[in-house]
Amino acid sequence: MQEALALFPELEKEQASQNASLRLRAAIGRSYHDIIRSMTGQMLHAPDFILFPKTDDDVTHILKQATDKSITINTFSGGSNVTGAYEIEETDQVVCSLNMKHMDMLLELDEVSQTATFQAGIFGPKLEEILNSKGFTMGHFPQSFEFSTLGGWLATRSAGQESGLYGKIEDIVLGIKVITPSGSMEDVDFPRHASGIDLYPLFIGSEGTLGIITQAKVRIHKLPESYSWKSALFKDYASGMEALKEMIQVGIHPSIVRLSDPMETKMLSLMSNSKKGPVQQFVQNIMKSYLVSKGFSKPCIMMMRFAIKSESSKTDMKVATRISKKHGAKMLPASVSETWEMNRFALPYLRDPLVQHRIMIDTFETVTYWQNIVPLYEHIQKALADHSDYFDKGGFLFCHVSHAYLTGASLYFTMLARQEKGNEVNQWLQLKEVVSNAVIEHGGAISHHHGVGKDHRKWYRQKLGESSRQLLSQIKGLLDPKRVLNPGKLFDEKKD
Amino acid sequence: MQEALALFPELEKEQASQNASLRLRAAIGRSYHDIIRSMTGQMLHAPDFILFPKTDDDVTHILKQATDKSITINTFSGGSNVTGAYEIEETDQVVCSLNMKHMDMLLELDEVSQTATFQAGIFGPKLEEILNSKGFTMGHFPQSFEFSTLGGWLATRSAGQESGLYGKIEDIVLGIKVITPSGSMEDVDFPRHASGIDLYPLFIGSEGTLGIITQAKVRIHKLPESYSWKSALFKDYASGMEALKEMIQVGIHPSIVRLSDPMETKMLSLMSNSKKGPVQQFVQNIMKSYLVSKGFSKPCIMMMRFAIKSESSKTDMKVATRISKKHGAKMLPASVSETWEMNRFALPYLRDPLVQHRIMIDTFETVTYWQNIVPLYEHIQKALADHSDYFDKGGFLFCHVSHAYLTGASLYFTMLARQEKGNEVNQWLQLKEVVSNAVIEHGGAISHHHGVGKDHRKWYRQKLGESSRQLLSQIKGLLDPKRVLNPGKLFDEKKD
Repeated sequence: MQEALALFPELEKEQASQNASLRLRAAIGRSYHDIIRSMTGQMLHAPDFILFPKTDDDVTHILKQATDKSITINTFSGGSNVTGAYEIEETDQVVCSLNMKHMDMLLELDEVSQTATFQAGIFGPKLEEILNSKGFTMGHFPQSFEFSTLGGWLATRSAGQESGLYGKIEDIVLGIKVITPSGSMEDVDFPRHASGIDLYPLFIGSEGTLGIITQAKVRIHKLPESYSWKSALFKDYASGMEALKEMIQVGIHPSIVRLSDPMETKMLSLMSNSKKGPVQQFVQNIMKSYLVSKGFSKPCIMMMRFAIKSESSKTDMKVATRISKKHGAKMLPASVSETWEMNRFALPYLRDPLVQHRIMIDTFETVTYWQNIVPLYEHIQKALADHSDYFDKGGFLFCHVSHAYLTGASLYFTMLARQEKGNEVNQWLQLKEVVSNAVIEHGGAISHHHGVGKDHRKWYRQKLGESSRQLLSQIKGLLDPKRVLNPGKLFDEKKD
Repeated sequence: MQEALALFPELEKEQASQNASLRLRAAIGRSYHDIIRSMTGQMLHAPDFILFPKTDDDVTHILKQATDKSITINTFSGGSNVTGAYEIEETDQVVCSLNMKHMDMLLELDEVSQTATFQAGIFGPKLEEILNSKGFTMGHFPQSFEFSTLGGWLATRSAGQESGLYGKIEDIVLGIKVITPSGSMEDVDFPRHASGIDLYPLFIGSEGTLGIITQAKVRIHKLPESYSWKSALFKDYASGMEALKEMIQVGIHPSIVRLSDPMETKMLSLMSNSKKGPVQQFVQNIMKSYLVSKGFSKPCIMMMRFAIKSESSKTDMKVATRISKKHGAKMLPASVSETWEMNRFALPYLRDPLVQHRIMIDTFETVTYWQNIVPLYEHIQKALADHSDYFDKGGFLFCHVSHAYLTGASLYFTMLARQEKGNEVNQWLQLKEVVSNAVIEHGGAISHHHGVGKDHRKWYRQKLGESSRQLLSQIKGLLDPKRVLNPGKLFDEKKD
């Protein structure tokens, strides 16, 4: 503590902590890899101190001292990262975790223009509570919503469940204030403009390696009048994809869409059935009869939630139904989506108990153009079959599309398998290698919304052109000349 | 010629020209300032050669030689720029105009994912012809459409008349290939992603100062089934703005929207009347009766064109009508928009004859948040009244909104006045100063879609923060270390 305050003399006593459990928390994210590492007693490097800036000036001070004294700064906001963003490489330097949680104020709300400016450390629930109380929403609901912050969303290119209507975080942001070791930067922001180069996009997806985002101005929306669900059952994944593509390309944007592959559809059906309510039984019966009589050998469910904002939203739902039917779907009662909706933020809570029961559960996700969406899905399955014994040993793989754009869509996979006792970390590393290779070899991005961190760095760098690598490294040198910010994330300090 | 080929030995004979009229053409844009300068015999610096690259390798060669030999390279594509982008500062260096028009091929078309990749020198009509023949459109129709190119649109942050539906060029682009004096760069592109920092946004709005965009991948759309117009007459500009804002914020997106202020509405009505067709007479009569009986003392017309893509588009039109009426509008027959639609690309052609008849005609445009849209409009009028004798001498000022976003909109002004003989350039410079000061002092961008060039540089730099200025200058130094690219545009070589 004394030591921390000696290094950062302008901070107040309560702005630094050496509390052991806080330090441990700041070293571990929320991925299966993180949990396994901590449960199996792997060596972890924790930060020496936690710093809690309250103001932009605090951040400036911290970065200046860190640069002058070669102190490593790892940014931490909500702590929900799943790509190894908090992993600390072995170093002789003092390592500080910069915890942004006290910078969580609304700075400006323009109800007419529908913009809001927040400090970047604000968590999802507080941000939405503030906006909801005035009749607005930002519309950004990642599954980590409760445990993640605006700054974290921007730094990792987050996507929320309602991205179909409100956009990914890079579509939502209008401008940021960012503090770098070389100075603080804030572009003038406009709804759109033609007055030169925007610098703020450099920091979107920069994962704390170029500077600390301290404020962001975002688009907000009036809360919709209501929500309404449509659910459709498709004969196979490809026809569901076709229907979804056609909807989006014709301009129909459900706020939430989730198209599950046959395996995930089966799982959802079992989960639904386990409650044995009359509605679920009814749905189950319908589904069974389809399976038998209509050739739905690999049924895939698509759930769509529409935000009702005007008469047009209701027509949109009709168009979505028409297009689904055109692609051979049977419409299901809206209630089938209810189980999922009730639990949509709860699934990550399931993970820890499963791991304790020696189940490996991990997720990975990617994005590609429509042309490549079914081939990529199949390549990933094939890679797991060909290059691992995953399926032989009873592993399950589920997939859904939950973010669809004019030109393509994301694929979100869940892996569920028995843990290999004593080999937990290696088991994960091997599978990660197989699926990540398959993703980038077949035209997928190494991530659609989780980010790069340490876990994906290798594959990210494989796809980075030499000129881009060089320019990024030079820009890093300009903004963070002593390379104190988040070493080992995005950049490879040994090579960049 | 020989000299050009000696400087750029890998080019073929027909790839360089010293033709005098080509050189003159490459020195003059399409602004009133350009035309006045050329008509009044002002000193113009023309480039020494015109270079016509055919391939990326040609561009690489040209930039390498230019860097090695300190040759200035001014990029020129369609030649429609109105912000002084082709002005050449006095220099001892050889100055080349890089004309991209031979790099105009379709490189890839993905009809499933709705993406297309073109060489950047392709002109609007050829690009649309290629796409239309396959049933697609890119949906980018700036008024310069016939005389401007994809690369030019990207370099200047262009906006087309249908931006409401298809977006501004920065919303349309998915990725670019850019060649800089330090190397060629091409990010891997995805519909969206979370795999690190996108570098391509650095070149959007860079106006040829950081590199030459040689290719771009863009989103394309199926051609709509048809188009349909709605026109509404509002009691004043503010209520029209309110209606437009409400439509956009509730998710209704006419592909074209044009909300004219009272003065422009009057002009449109006169133009419509001058044809004396029965429909126009009818409209004129309706408008007159409103003016008399309904208190439409300052009527403002809003024309909206909807692209019919599904049943939802028709509901959108109903919602637009309902919202217009809610804000006191009377709906007009769709035919009133026809005159405007027929002439929507022709208006710039009117400019030269007007100038020859000693009429000053110039346009300027800006963008701001909704909160500020009416105040900014009024501030600009007031500034012209207070700081010039523009209105005293019979000058007219018209305005319309033609690009509306969730958070704000553009304002596009036309100035029409008598030329001051012998003082033509100064007259323009003085007015430019007054309106540009008003724009940036009251929260507008110095441009929404024309760009910065030389004419807006002063105001652009006034709003650029010191850290941003410094980082941009450093990035310029990395990519164009000898500063051979478009000197005097965006950057101030004496200070940056």
